[in-house]
Parts: sequence; C-alpha cells; structure tokens
Amino acid sequence: MGGGNSIGKALRVTTFGESHGKAVGAVVDGVPAGLPLSEDDVRFELQFRRPGGRFVSSRREPDEPEILSGVFSGRTTGSPVAILVRNVDVQSAPYEEFRYKPRPGHADLSYVLKYGLDNWDYRGGGRASARETVARVAAGAIAKKLMLARGTMVAGYLASLGPVDSRRPSWEEAACAKYSPLKAPDPATEARYAELIKEALQEGDSWGGVAEVIVMNPPPGLGEPVFDKLKADLAKALMSIPAAMGFEVGQGFAAARVRGSEHKDNIVMRGGRPGLETNRAGGMLGGISVGEPIVVRVAFKPTSSIRKPSRTVDLRTGEPAEISVLGRHDPAVAVRGVAVAESMVALVVADHMLRSGAVSPVRLEPGEAGAIEEGWSRYRAMCSG
Amino acid sequence: MGGGNSIGKALRVTTFGESHGKAVGAVVDGVPAGLPLSEDDVRFELQFRRPGGRFVSSRREPDEPEILSGVFSGRTTGSPVAILVRNVDVQSAPYEEFRYKPRPGHADLSYVLKYGLDNWDYRGGGRASARETVARVAAGAIAKKLMLARGTMVAGYLASLGPVDSRRPSWEEAACAKYSPLKAPDPATEARYAELIKEALQEGDSWGGVAEVIVMNPPPGLGEPVFDKLKADLAKALMSIPAAMGFEVGQGFAAARVRGSEHKDNIVMRGGRPGLETNRAGGMLGGISVGEPIVVRVAFKPTSSIRKPSRTVDLRTGEPAEISVLGRHDPAVAVRGVAVAESMVALVVADHMLRSGAVSPVRLEPGEAGAIEEGWSRYRAMCSG
Amino acid sequence: MGGGNSIGKALRVTTFGESHGKAVGAVVDGVPAGLPLSEDDVRFELQFRRPGGRFVSSRREPDEPEILSGVFSGRTTGSPVAILVRNVDVQSAPYEEFRYKPRPGHADLSYVLKYGLDNWDYRGGGRASARETVARVAAGAIAKKLMLARGTMVAGYLASLGPVDSRRPSWEEAACAKYSPLKAPDPATEARYAELIKEALQEGDSWGGVAEVIVMNPPPGLGEPVFDKLKADLAKALMSIPAAMGFEVGQGFAAARVRGSEHKDNIVMRGGRPGLETNRAGGMLGGISVGEPIVVRVAFKPTSSIRKPSRTVDLRTGEPAEISVLGRHDPAVAVRGVAVAESMVALVVADHMLRSGAVSPVRLEPGEAGAIEEGWSRYRAMCSG
Amino acid sequence: MGGGNSIGKALRVTTFGESHGKAVGAVVDGVPAGLPLSEDDVRFELQFRRPGGRFVSSRREPDEPEILSGVFSGRTTGSPVAILVRNVDVQSAPYEEFRYKPRPGHADLSYVLKYGLDNWDYRGGGRASARETVARVAAGAIAKKLMLARGTMVAGYLASLGPVDSRRPSWEEAACAKYSPLKAPDPATEARYAELIKEALQEGDSWGGVAEVIVMNPPPGLGEPVFDKLKADLAKALMSIPAAMGFEVGQGFAAARVRGSEHKDNIVMRGGRPGLETNRAGGMLGGISVGEPIVVRVAFKPTSSIRKPSRTVDLRTGEPAEISVLGRHDPAVAVRGVAVAESMVALVVADHMLRSGAVSPVRLEPGEAGAIEEGWSRYRAMCSG
Repeated sequence: MGGGNSIGKALRVTTFGESHGKAVGAVVDGVPAGLPLSEDDVRFELQFRRPGGRFVSSRREPDEPEILSGVFSGRTTGSPVAILVRNVDVQSAPYEEFRYKPRPGHADLSYVLKYGLDNWDYRGGGRASARETVARVAAGAIAKKLMLARGTMVAGYLASLGPVDSRRPSWEEAACAKYSPLKAPDPATEARYAELIKEALQEGDSWGGVAEVIVMNPPPGLGEPVFDKLKADLAKALMSIPAAMGFEVGQGFAAARVRGSEHKDNIVMRGGRPGLETNRAGGMLGGISVGEPIVVRVAFKPTSSIRKPSRTVDLRTGEPAEISVLGRHDPAVAVRGVAVAESMVALVVADHMLRSGAVSPVRLEPGEAGAIEEGWSRYRAMCSG
Repeated sequence: MGGGNSIGKALRVTTFGESHGKAVGAVVDGVPAGLPLSEDDVRFELQFRRPGGRFVSSRREPDEPEILSGVFSGRTTGSPVAILVRNVDVQSAPYEEFRYKPRPGHADLSYVLKYGLDNWDYRGGGRASARETVARVAAGAIAKKLMLARGTMVAGYLASLGPVDSRRPSWEEAACAKYSPLKAPDPATEARYAELIKEALQEGDSWGGVAEVIVMNPPPGLGEPVFDKLKADLAKALMSIPAAMGFEVGQGFAAARVRGSEHKDNIVMRGGRPGLETNRAGGMLGGISVGEPIVVRVAFKPTSSIRKPSRTVDLRTGEPAEISVLGRHDPAVAVRGVAVAESMVALVVADHMLRSGAVSPVRLEPGEAGAIEEGWSRYRAMCSG
Repeated sequence: MGGGNSIGKALRVTTFGESHGKAVGAVVDGVPAGLPLSEDDVRFELQFRRPGGRFVSSRREPDEPEILSGVFSGRTTGSPVAILVRNVDVQSAPYEEFRYKPRPGHADLSYVLKYGLDNWDYRGGGRASARETVARVAAGAIAKKLMLARGTMVAGYLASLGPVDSRRPSWEEAACAKYSPLKAPDPATEARYAELIKEALQEGDSWGGVAEVIVMNPPPGLGEPVFDKLKADLAKALMSIPAAMGFEVGQGFAAARVRGSEHKDNIVMRGGRPGLETNRAGGMLGGISVGEPIVVRVAFKPTSSIRKPSRTVDLRTGEPAEISVLGRHDPAVAVRGVAVAESMVALVVADHMLRSGAVSPVRLEPGEAGAIEEGWSRYRAMCSG
Repeated sequence: MGGGNSIGKALRVTTFGESHGKAVGAVVDGVPAGLPLSEDDVRFELQFRRPGGRFVSSRREPDEPEILSGVFSGRTTGSPVAILVRNVDVQSAPYEEFRYKPRPGHADLSYVLKYGLDNWDYRGGGRASARETVARVAAGAIAKKLMLARGTMVAGYLASLGPVDSRRPSWEEAACAKYSPLKAPDPATEARYAELIKEALQEGDSWGGVAEVIVMNPPPGLGEPVFDKLKADLAKALMSIPAAMGFEVGQGFAAARVRGSEHKDNIVMRGGRPGLETNRAGGMLGGISVGEPIVVRVAFKPTSSIRKPSRTVDLRTGEPAEISVLGRHDPAVAVRGVAVAESMVALVVADHMLRSGAVSPVRLEPGEAGAIEEGWSRYRAMCSG
C-alpha cells in the first residue's frame, strides 16, 4: 500500500521522483529472468513522450535512462530492475509565484490540503507533474518486451483532439502513430490537429483530447472474474495518468445509448477457435480477454497551464488573486499522454500475463527470449519504410 | 492477490459465491471497532438492488443477510465482518442449453477459455452473474455508515437510459432516486424511462444506461498522488461491475472536446476555505479530493440476455448455433447497477478515509459512533416525507 | 491490508469468526480450477485439531464444514472457496468474570488497549481464541491437495512437550503422528508426553511444546530472493498462530552456536541432480527451496488458562484482582497446535507453488487432478495399516 | 507482490541492487509529510553496518547515500523517498570460479535452480548478498525517526557469538552496543567475542550468533489480531535477513520447556496503567503490543564463506569439486546482522504505527516533527559520554 506509488501485482512498478527534484525513476519487480534488456530499449520508448518538440513543452530533457540493477550480461536476472532518469533542465523560479496561489486545474490545492502548506513541493507540480510519467514509460518498455513472448503488441494514437476526430486507423497506422509529432495515425488527421494546436498557442489556450490504445493478439484468459477484471485494472491504470477524466472500453459510453441487439457481438469460429464477429466489447467479456484486440480509450482534459489568466486565492490571506501561467507547457497534454497510456496498458497486460501464467513469472524459456528479440527488432524497424 | 476477489486496502472487501450456488457473501476486513451495525442495516441497503419488480428480473430472492462475525452487542469489534446471503430462488435447468453454446455478450466464452469447459459453472452465469453484486451492496452498507462519521454521504441515480437523459437533479432528488423503481431522480424522467423499458420488453430487447454517483461533503485529502489516485480507485471499482463499459469523473469525456479556459475551475473562498467556483473537475484535483462533491459516472451496456436470437457456436463441434435467452432478466442492467455503483463508490471513499486517517482504522470515538447513528436515522427517513 | 485477516499472495486465505460467535470460516481465493474438493476432504483434516479428547479441551464441536462456493460437480471452478463452520457448543457465562479483569497471558489486555473496553468481545477470547484456527485447518485441506499435484506432502508432529523431546522420527512416523492423541511420532514418546499432561492436569497447570513440520519432496525454486523468502513467509505464518513464541528452520538456533565448517551442507549429486549431503539448512538456501525436505519448528508457550490463580487488575478501578481460569482448556496448546502449524506450512508452500508457476494459478491439467486424487487416497489410507 | 522485493504495508520499502552491480537502493513509500530527513541521517545509520573493520569484510565501501526524491527543504513531502548507494569497491574476478560450482551454504544453488544457469548473476552473491541489506539500513533510518514521534526507540546488540553469551544489558548498554565493533553491550563481552573471532580467522572458519533487538516505549495496540500480528510481521522481517535461521519473542523457545505458571506474566498497574509484572511475553499479547518493551531475537548461521575447503559439484558435468572461498568475508555475519535486524524491527514497528494511526500516515504535526528532531539529536549524542 504505502503512499500508493506502486501498481501491478505480479509485475509491480513503483515510481519515485518529482518534476524539479534530482531524478525520476522506477523499480520494476517481478520481471522474469532471461528477458533481453538494455538501456537502449528504454531510451527508444522514452523518445515518444519526450518534451522539446514544436507542439509540446520546451523543457529540454535528454531523458537518459540508467539501469541500476536486475540486468546481467544483457538479460534480466529475476531481481528488480531499477531505472533512473536524472532531471536536467529544471527552472524553478517561476513557481515561487504559485507557492501560496494554487494554480486552478492543477493538484496544487489538493496537495496543500492534504500535506500542508509547509510540506508541499510547489516547484513544477512536484510529484503531480507529468514528469513522473517518464518512469511509467521506462517501465513500459519492459512490459512491451515481455508481451512479445506471446506475440502480443500494443499501440496508441490520438483518437481526437478537441473537436476533431481521427478516422479509424488500421493496425499499422495505429502502431506507427507514435512517430507523428501529434500522435496522429495519418497525415490528414495530423494536419487538422496541427491547426488546432497552432490556434491554441496563439490564443494562450489549450485543448483536451482522447487517446486510444489497442492490444493486438492478446492471449485469451487475461483478467480475473470479479474485482481484478482486466477492464477494471486498465481503468485504474489509465485513470491514474495526470489529467485523465474518462475511460472507455470497446463501444464505451455509446453502448449505454443502444439496445442489446445493437451491442452484443455474435460468437463465430475464426481460425479454428471461437471469436467475436464484431468487437464492440473491446476484446473482453466478463472482464476477461477472449483473444480479440483489446480497445480502450482515455479522455484527457485540456492543459491547465495556460497564458489566459485564471482566478485563484492567496492561501495566506484568503484574498482573491489572478494568475497567468507562462512557463513551458504542452498546449495539449493528450499528445504526450498517448505514450503514457500505451505504457500503462502494456504494464497491465504484462502483469496479467504473469498472473495467469501465460508467461512464466520466474524465467523465460530460451525460445521466448528469442521471440522477444526478434519481435523487438521488427517493432523498432516497422514504421521506417 | 489470490484470484482477484478482494478490493480496497484499509477497508478490504472479499466476495464469494455464484448465481446458482448456495450463497453469496462478503468478508469486510478493516472495519474499525465501535461502528453500530445490524442485519437490518444491510437489509435496508439490499432492497435497492433486489430483483423482483416490474422492471427487473423476476427471480424472487428475499436477500436475507446474516452477519456471521465481527459484531458484538450491536457494535463492530475490529474483527472482520462476514455477511452471508443464501440463494433461494435458483432455476438452473434453462442453462443446460448454454453449457456448450456460450451466450454472446456474457462471460461464458471467456470463462471457458480461461478455466476450461470442464471446470465451468455454467448455471446462471456462475461467478460472473450480477448476483455477485449482492455481496457488494451488503458491504457497501458498512462503508456508508462509516462515511457518516465525517458527515459524508453518497447517492446514485440513473442519469440516462438508452437515448433518454435525466435532467440534472438536486442533491435531494439524487439521494431519493433509490426509491424510484427505475432510479430516476424525478417523476417525469421516470415516466420517460418506463416507456423505453416497456418497449424493450415488448421487442425482446434491452437498453444500456448510465449511472451517476455523487459524494456529498467528502473530506479533502482523500486519494494518493500517483497510482492510488481517488479517481483511479473509483474507476477500477466501477469498471469491476458486470456490464460496465465506461467511466467518467466530472466533465468526463466532454473535457476532451474543450479548451483549457472552458474546463478548469477557478479557485475561490467559500465558507472560509478554498474551493472550486465550478466543479467540472468532479471534486478532485490531481486525483485527490478537495472537499467539493465528487461526481462520477459509469456506463452500462444493454443486458445481453434478450429474447431476440443471437448467433453463437457449439464448442463441442465448432458448428454455428442460434440461441434465444428466455430466462429471467433485467431489460436494463443499468437500473439495478445504480445501487451497485453507489456501493462501490462508498467502499472506495470509506477505504480512503481509513487510509488517510480521516477516520481511525482502529476504533471510532463515541462521538463518531453517535454521529453515525444519528446520520443513519436521518438517511433512512429522508425520502419518506 | 484491511485488519490483517488475510495471508498469502497467489493463494490468499481470509478467515473470520470468533470463539463464541455464530461461526468461523475461511475464504480461499486463488484456488485454480479443476481441483477435486469435497466437504469430506475438509472434515478429514479438521478431525486432527478437534477438541473433545482426553488431553484437550472438553468443548464439543462437531466442526462440520459447509462449502459455500467455488466448487461445482466436485471440482473447484477458480472462484473463491468459502468454507463455513458453525459454532455449536458455546458457553459464554464463565467469561463475564473476565470482562473487566484481563486474563494474564491472554490477548484480553491488548484487545482492550487497542479497541476499547466497550468494543471488546470478551467471550471465550473472541477473535484471539484458538477457535479461529479451525478456519486455517479447513483452508489447509485445499493447500494439501494442491501440493499433491507435484507429489509434495507435509507432516507435523510434537517434537517436544515441556522438558521431554521426541526422538527424531522417520518420514512415515512423522506423517502418522496426526493420529496420535498427543501428536507423538511413536508410542514411547506418546507415553512420556501423556505422563506430563496428566501431571499438569492434576496440578492445574500446563506445558509448552514445540511442533516440527516437514515438507517432503518440495519442488526447488519456491520462495523469492529478498523479503518473500520461503523461510520468511513460513516464519510469519507460524508466528501468526496463537501462543507461538519462536520459529526455527533446519538447525535453527543451534546454528548460532557452531562454526561454519560445522553447519554448512556440502553439495552432492543425488538421483542425477544436485542436492545437500546433510540438511542443516532445512531445505532452503537464500530462502529458496532446493528440493530437500523443508524442516521448520514453532515453539508454543504453555496454555495461559490454568486453574492455579494469577494476579491481574480490575480495569474499572485499577485495583489488583486474583483470577483462576476454570473453563474448558487444553493442558498444552502445542498438541492441537501441530495440526494448525501443518496447515499453515501447507498454505505457504502451496502459495509459493502458485506464485512460481510450479502449479498453474488458473487451472490444473487433467493429469494433475488425477495425481491429486490418487495421492489424496493414499494419504488418507496411509497410517491405517 | 512482484518478485517479493517489498515489505511493509503502510510504510512500504522496496529494495533493489546486487552486490557487484552499479548500486543498491531503497524506495520508501508511505512516509508522512513533515518528517525532517537528510542524507546525513542515513549516513549516520549506515556506519553501523559498514564493512571494512578488523572483524568484518575488508571490502571498502563508503556507503554514501543519495536521497533522490521525497524530501524538500529538509522535510519529507509525502512522496516516496528513494535512496541510492553506489557500489564502489567491486572485485568480481574471484567469482568466476564459482560460476558453475555453487558455494555450499550460499544461495548459489537455489538461484541456479530457480532462474537457470544462464540468468544467474554469480558475482558476489548477486541479489542474495548481504550487500542488499545496505538498503534496509538506509530505509531503517526513516523508520527510526518516525518512531521518535511517539518517543519510541529501538536498539540491537549481539546477544551471543558461537558458544559465548552476553550478559543481559541495561537499556543504555543495549542502545550503545552499536558503537562496539562486535556489537557487544559491555567491554567484557566484547573481549570474549573478540577472542572467538580471532580464533575463527586463524582457522579459516566462522561463527554463528544471535542478535537481540529491543523496542523501548512502544505504543500499545500495534499489530493486528490474526495474520498480521506484530510478532508475525517481526518474524517475517527478521527471517528475511540473509543467514537468519531462527526467531524468538520474549522467552522464546524456552517458553516451550516450562509450565504455564512459570511463563505467564501477571498484570499489574504501573504508572497509572495496566502492564506486565514480568515480560516473558516480550511485549506482546495475542500478537499486539501492550506498552512493555518488545524483545525479539534472530539467530544467524555462521558465515558460509570460509577458507576451509568444502565439497560441491560442477554443474556442467555433475562431477564433485572442492572449493575454498578466499574473498573478503565477515568471520561472523551476525555482527553486522545486528544493525540490519535493528533496522528491520524499526521498519515493522513504524509500519504498524502508521497502520494503527498512532502516527498519521499523511502528515506529521509540527509538534511531532519537533519531538523527532530533539529525539534524534539525543539519540546521536547518547553514547558519546
């Protein structure tokens, strides 16, 4: 339990670190022995949530991961894998203004109410900053590799930005959206998203958005019948991301608007085994995977740090105050949220693979390690064509 | 961990039992000593999810709870409270037909894939049946009483049924919706919901719906900063309910469509302490409660058991088959889902009250026990006027 | 977490119930599907800790178990197995005397200090009574059957009673000691134990004792490297038994008196695989099993309820008081503690079998179920020759 | 769960790192906000288990701790505290010899059996090395400071070395034993221990020993009634230390040899509240603290790495082999085990303080922080007179 900084049961991730502290990091416990793993694997994943681009915060973080433990001769040993990423580009001065004037939409007020004004790390959002999610993406690299032992892959893309919806992508488009600066699955969508972002930047405003994450080729049987349903664990994992406001699986909220005859998926034989004719269920029945693609979505609110002024109070006096957050911020947190959502889904799926024995929680067979190495090479090369 | 049949950390609920087994029940561990508790308290809550009405399943279950442990002289002792509810009206014969022909939309297929055709309790949905939620509502009675130690209350209502939305209710309307057979917050909405249900019954079809749950007067500071955010734990709890397809907090998915200047809540002084001018955030910032009402929604898919025929396969032969589920079923699981959602929210909020020390995890002070008794009397009487 | 009434991770047992309440029971979560299980299996195990004999408490409890859930057609389904044992022979009147005069050596004082004088179930020790261990032995039956999937068995016996030590038994003697009323592994030891017990009964006194538990044929690799070492989990499980005062593995405390050259076990090939020449380590190295028999001991203090008067205080006045506990008590809790210790060891070993994948946490193969059935028959018949 | 590298529930410690890897470290989750904490506090504690002295391993590790997170302006923030200690003096070459020849008494064999010969970090014992305990002692510094919020302190000393017993020390002697190179509570005992160690060094052998840990002034009510008894959690924590072979509380195994009338502690009034006349129980009844000093012991086996040759097998060929471990090793692991045992006890006690609300799990009051600062100063100065 502790202070709630761990997630997962068989594959258990603990993160630490603050936005303007020395470092952020993750300890991943429960990684079976024999998984090929290098700092370069982690670095590869971190690039997809890195700040510094045209459409995201201008904070310049190299996000250089150091694996401190759990790997020997290029393979995991079964011991916890600790990954450290030092914070480099920290500018805390602008936050002095907000020390006693909590920023609307941020966790400032709730942290002050919970921990006390004197114990609050007000620099850059402290622990509530999206900077913490570096650790999640680093841990996610391990999960993604583990999943390849069963040929399972995950892909996320930005399904909508403000009022603009992406069209429904193919698996390949979804899988390659990570290379798009706006995580769009196709150039037309990217262009429309870019319009919106430019407008928001000009107006000192921001947009919300929705990330969709798809798990291809999941083994059936993931998830437990009652509280640890796969959909429930996915919901928790995605709703734990900063700025998450909603979660859906399959047809989601739209399912609440329709009739049973319009929602439920007929069962048919496909490739010699029973599957769903359609997949409105999003790959799970009773919260347990059936082998169809798992499809989930997470809604992100618009970035709260905007140039347009907001009203708050001075906590010392109770007097009203007006603030305008200049700093370095994303005009839409949903953009970088895609990589985080993808990582959280991978962590949950890999956790349940270990829980159910779909992958041994102790050690990988040589053939599994080989499948991972090959799958990972293909994954890294797949969108470069 | 086990098989995922427990939820909560400080207040930990484990449920057991199947639809057509001997009984369903819950063990609630972590209840502080000194809480006034009787079987009648549990019975009171169970009435709100009981089958047997005009709009719900015709299965006749008295849902008579027996408290087996943890209560002495009308007060809890700090020991686990085990509550047992025997199944009485069980008719398993109709399920023989589905033993090898999994019902679309149900957990049949996923259970067979996970546990094997030979180990599957195919009678009435077994563990995946909504019958399991009796145990959740029984446990929820304890949580609701605990919350009253801080004057905190919870209320759920059916916010939409199929295409029909309820209008936004007052707190009192929401709190009294439990007495409506369709959990509608006002007579006009109830009438419109009733129309839809009648139509569905005639057509042998069903409707989805959305339950909204509101927590009034929550203490600030509930929820942990990273993975155990209050919104994340609420999401898991609500998405663990059978048929849940989506979760939202505050503005929810709508927040993803708007600009930052349209979403974030200004901070103002109210009653001498800082609060939110609006409450689009749904009562939490950074996943931690700020003292404003907590507002969450869960989307339920339409009941999968409908008279209209569905296509499935015979698992012995792989041949296509057509089935029509007659049995005794709700035309909209969302209706009874309201009570379950309300209970799950109560369990999560009470859990975090104990985790944060807002209520002692060991024993209640006499004044707290008194506040609970008084609050509970008022709660039971409140809609009878 | 809750109130600490659960143990185990993959195989998670939650117990409930008080000595003079309605019932005691256990919910066992994480039992894989396909395990043959009946109430008779549980009844068989309960006989070995039942009160009523010449050497133990005269409370007459039939200990009739009812399986409420998780079993269908004689096999487990993967759902939690709830087992209920009603209390029948309850005599609470003698405990009125102790309501304000805590019995020395019992948990009375600590419960009052923790939960408050008003919230304390003072009847028969309440939750702290050895009666709670019925639930552990019931759950242990499941663990013992699970272990048979790998041909692993467990046996406990009374290694010493007061000043008298048993001689070192063979595996068969240890396995059959359960049928001895004093859990002695041979008739000579039984006779010497009986002498001591008679003397204690005459003098209104009691004796301490040590239970030894042996696990035969454990798979190697059980236990995790650091905190969840098998020896650590065994220590917790055994020290959680009422009256437990000490725990040892292998050579135990004696190892602290000797030189390295006298303690460590050489490694030799045996049956084609590496093993220990001697087994001073007690079957584990670095807290992980190596395939040798696991040997642990737990020391029980003498029964605190004795006729000889003790001094206490009246909690209402602070005045000294003298009490003499007549009631119905064992002259040596260690005797019935043997069955409990055996069950706790089985639960820990089965938990680690599931954690490590030595047995699938989801479902048993038909061959495994067969091995269990055959092994269980042999086990039940083994000492009747 | 993960791979079992975490311990504690409210105060949850996760350790990582191997003997010859880059670093060892701990993440401590659940530390309330407002605790004064610096790297110097951690450094102070680490000195008591540091290698490099005359009687311990000659490995030269400065054990310089870096706090990576969770502290701001000298106080904890409620976020996880990550502490990193780099490994500096690593000499892996001698371990090549043991790659295929597991060292008797070490975890080599069990790691190979569990994780496979190819995935095993054979350098310096890898994760099974006592080097891992640096992280425990670092985390222990936080626990010791937290306990001071209630005026609770912990002290450990070497109660016996091989055949030599310490005499029973006063609290002050026990508290100052940490400054003795052999953790002896008085000079006469230290001299006798030193004799034994010299002899062992000359003969290329080692000795076992017993550490006793005392908790002074614990609040009553720590520990949960059934599985999470304080004594059970202490047993797990101490038995998780490398080389631990046995655990005792209070009279321990000796209680199993005596009569009830000789063991149980009468209850008397003392300082206006009920307490134990004697303390054979070791400060707990029913596994829950009563306010008396908590007294536990852990038995350590003799160091397995000795110059005297041992017999093993070559895992590649199955052929017998003889090895002699030169390297840099303690002649008695129990000596440095004292600091580790003390830290583990502190972690368990602090965890239960938070669990029971004896100290708020969210934030310390200013008065508590002040008491901690003052108590810590006194603690650091207390043996220098």
